[in-house]
Amino acid sequence: MNPSGPTQPSDEHDPSRHNLDPHLDRYAARTAGMTASEIRALFAVASRPEVVSLAGGMPNLTALPLESLAAQMSDLIREEGLTGLQYGSAQGVPTLREQICEIMALEGISAHPDDVVVTVGSQMGLDMVTRLFCDPGDVVLAEGPSYVGAIGSFTAYQAEIEHVAMDDDGLVPENLREALARTEREGKRVKFLYTIPNFHNPAGVTLAVNRRSEILEICRQHGVLVIEDNPYGLLDFNGNIYPALRASDPDNVIYLGSFSKTFASGLRVGWVLAPHAVREKLVLAAESATLCPPTLNQLVVSRYLSSHDWMGQIKTFRENYRERRDAILGALEQHMPPGCSWTHPSGGFYVWLTVPEGVDAKAMLPRAVTARVAYASGTGFYANAEGSSQMRLSYCYPTPERLREGVRRLAGVLESEIELVHTFGTVHARTSSGPETPSPDTA
Amino acid sequence: MNPSGPTQPSDEHDPSRHNLDPHLDRYAARTAGMTASEIRALFAVASRPEVVSLAGGMPNLTALPLESLAAQMSDLIREEGLTGLQYGSAQGVPTLREQICEIMALEGISAHPDDVVVTVGSQMGLDMVTRLFCDPGDVVLAEGPSYVGAIGSFTAYQAEIEHVAMDDDGLVPENLREALARTEREGKRVKFLYTIPNFHNPAGVTLAVNRRSEILEICRQHGVLVIEDNPYGLLDFNGNIYPALRASDPDNVIYLGSFSKTFASGLRVGWVLAPHAVREKLVLAAESATLCPPTLNQLVVSRYLSSHDWMGQIKTFRENYRERRDAILGALEQHMPPGCSWTHPSGGFYVWLTVPEGVDAKAMLPRAVTARVAYASGTGFYANAEGSSQMRLSYCYPTPERLREGVRRLAGVLESEIELVHTFGTVHARTSSGPETPSPDTA
Repeated sequence: MNPSGPTQPSDEHDPSRHNLDPHLDRYAARTAGMTASEIRALFAVASRPEVVSLAGGMPNLTALPLESLAAQMSDLIREEGLTGLQYGSAQGVPTLREQICEIMALEGISAHPDDVVVTVGSQMGLDMVTRLFCDPGDVVLAEGPSYVGAIGSFTAYQAEIEHVAMDDDGLVPENLREALARTEREGKRVKFLYTIPNFHNPAGVTLAVNRRSEILEICRQHGVLVIEDNPYGLLDFNGNIYPALRASDPDNVIYLGSFSKTFASGLRVGWVLAPHAVREKLVLAAESATLCPPTLNQLVVSRYLSSHDWMGQIKTFRENYRERRDAILGALEQHMPPGCSWTHPSGGFYVWLTVPEGVDAKAMLPRAVTARVAYASGTGFYANAEGSSQMRLSYCYPTPERLREGVRRLAGVLESEIELVHTFGTVHARTSSGPETPSPDTA
Repeated sequence: MNPSGPTQPSDEHDPSRHNLDPHLDRYAARTAGMTASEIRALFAVASRPEVVSLAGGMPNLTALPLESLAAQMSDLIREEGLTGLQYGSAQGVPTLREQICEIMALEGISAHPDDVVVTVGSQMGLDMVTRLFCDPGDVVLAEGPSYVGAIGSFTAYQAEIEHVAMDDDGLVPENLREALARTEREGKRVKFLYTIPNFHNPAGVTLAVNRRSEILEICRQHGVLVIEDNPYGLLDFNGNIYPALRASDPDNVIYLGSFSKTFASGLRVGWVLAPHAVREKLVLAAESATLCPPTLNQLVVSRYLSSHDWMGQIKTFRENYRERRDAILGALEQHMPPGCSWTHPSGGFYVWLTVPEGVDAKAMLPRAVTARVAYASGTGFYANAEGSSQMRLSYCYPTPERLREGVRRLAGVLESEIELVHTFGTVHARTSSGPETPSPDTA
């Protein structure tokens, strides 16, 4: 292309240019944990239509009644436009907070709207709670694996994350006791247990009901708060609703809720239910973070709840997701090579797959994408080096047919990897800089 | 009412109950600066219709074309509903970021959409920038007075705020030099200068054009970043558009913009334009704070910009605000007692009033509210003890007639205070716990 022969790459196209950051010595210490996700470039490839992405956590919204939402939205602007387009209170719209209490009542929670703070998705709730409680070096206990976005928030406030292992019934009380004893022996200060009791992201398991009071009791005994993150609670495939941890311990549990998985993630409406004294500080923290959550979005959710059969809509969502869960579990059963194991979710979005020893799921990802299937490598769900033989498969978004095709492709890639392991031993060191953290829910 | 005579107040109604916070020893050190604003209760009174509130900073939205917005909103849901209701990228919708660059071009800024990060109002931009740069104890320079919400964010990250005094032409370069020399002598680390160059909140002044390059030069020499907060830039009453600081120093200025004052505050759509390397970290910080800004709101703004005469709408807003500015300045001229002085804004929302020595504007506020007029006490706009003889009067929201009535009432209260001062000396100690920080913009 260049008739005068090869030239030096221009500064514009030199990838190392991005590392020449003149502001490098100015950043706060907390930015040390922030590194650009190497997977971003990969996701650009993974989002091509020919790739079956089992990587993202985007809810499937095709069942939403768009025509009726459109009419409702225009009524809202006509009737309440000057309110919806104006600043509101930092705590959120009162009517919506009342409706949120009605929703939480389904999980046995008795709460006052005064103690609810509306947030920009429950991610903001998580960030605000961490802001309130975590000094640098404080310890947060979290299931291992845990939600990527939670790890991001804890890291942003320089908290140390200690993982507590789960089994098929969720968090293991004995492991929690040991983790608390260990951190106490080390003289560290544990600020809270962060837990996703229902249809865990990414593990796909649910905390057994008979473990719930034991876990609450352990945390109370050790003076450790519980942060209960429950975005998937109403998405049980049999329509069960588990009792919230908050229901039986109002003073020691902060509950995070969200409309992202039961209505629409793009509205970014979530909430925090906190003990009264904490709630006051939470409102001040939220005010300094965003002044107030978007008023329009709160009114949209409030109208939707009062005028739509929102429980019927959730039932439709659940049926869609159950069909997909059945498809992916069936395909895993049919195609996965020996030595693989996986969880069997009864709700929510995710299956957690463990591959045979020697196979590095993170190193394998580029090859999977070449074979037109993507997943989220397990390492992103740990704050330490764990998770390299695991991956999260999301079944929420693709059609059942695409899910089956994706699993078939993944099985093919895994078979080649396992063959390599058998021939050459472990293959995890083959790529030195494989893709890392997935984007929390959005990729 | 109680036939058996007086009883102990029940726990429910005991106001001191709120101080019995069982979580008190668990909070992060940064929460020490968070105290519930005493003015909240007062604002409940101040928001009664009979009170003329000069306290809030709510834009006047009555000129918005609601009918056409309603139609547009329903088109949006019909045509792009599945996108608008779904998660988006943490950086924001690409089309909107392109449009934002076109808007900034009006101020002489040449920017690439890749370097724009959409935020939940520019408050979130401010919070994210502080998160990126400020360790506890780092110094932030800010005009004195400065924006309440900025002080809130800086405090949340335990930054120390050093005020730099202004005159009628905005920030005084010589004062900036002195502040930098002083903090350097004290061995403190200044991370950035936070400045609102145009139609300052709360001071109502604008940075003279001939000072702009000098201020940029001073900051560059001292290795100090500039955070340029410009929500009111397009609201000059003569239609002038001042050159942005960012326009002449792309590498050392981070620019914060907002649609809250030029379109609709309740959508919470703002943005940050940052040097490329900073932008990467900013996206990661934003992701851990809210995952992504609301997609729907970004599409609403984008459609509005591409299909409405948005500059014509801003012209209408400007005319409304100019009419109000004229009303309040005329009334101040007519009614204020001798010894008062005030700024003469040529755009934006605010007049900054200085009362005669001996009058404590903070202590006077309850009496003003009793006289059915409210304002924001000057103390809320300083991180130190300054501002007690000053107040912010917002003319953005009330009608011209109400503004004149409000100023008339305020003058009456001030006259009584001045009389008391003449009789008894200073009156600032009369109430021991007067109202404090106003809610940033929303009250």
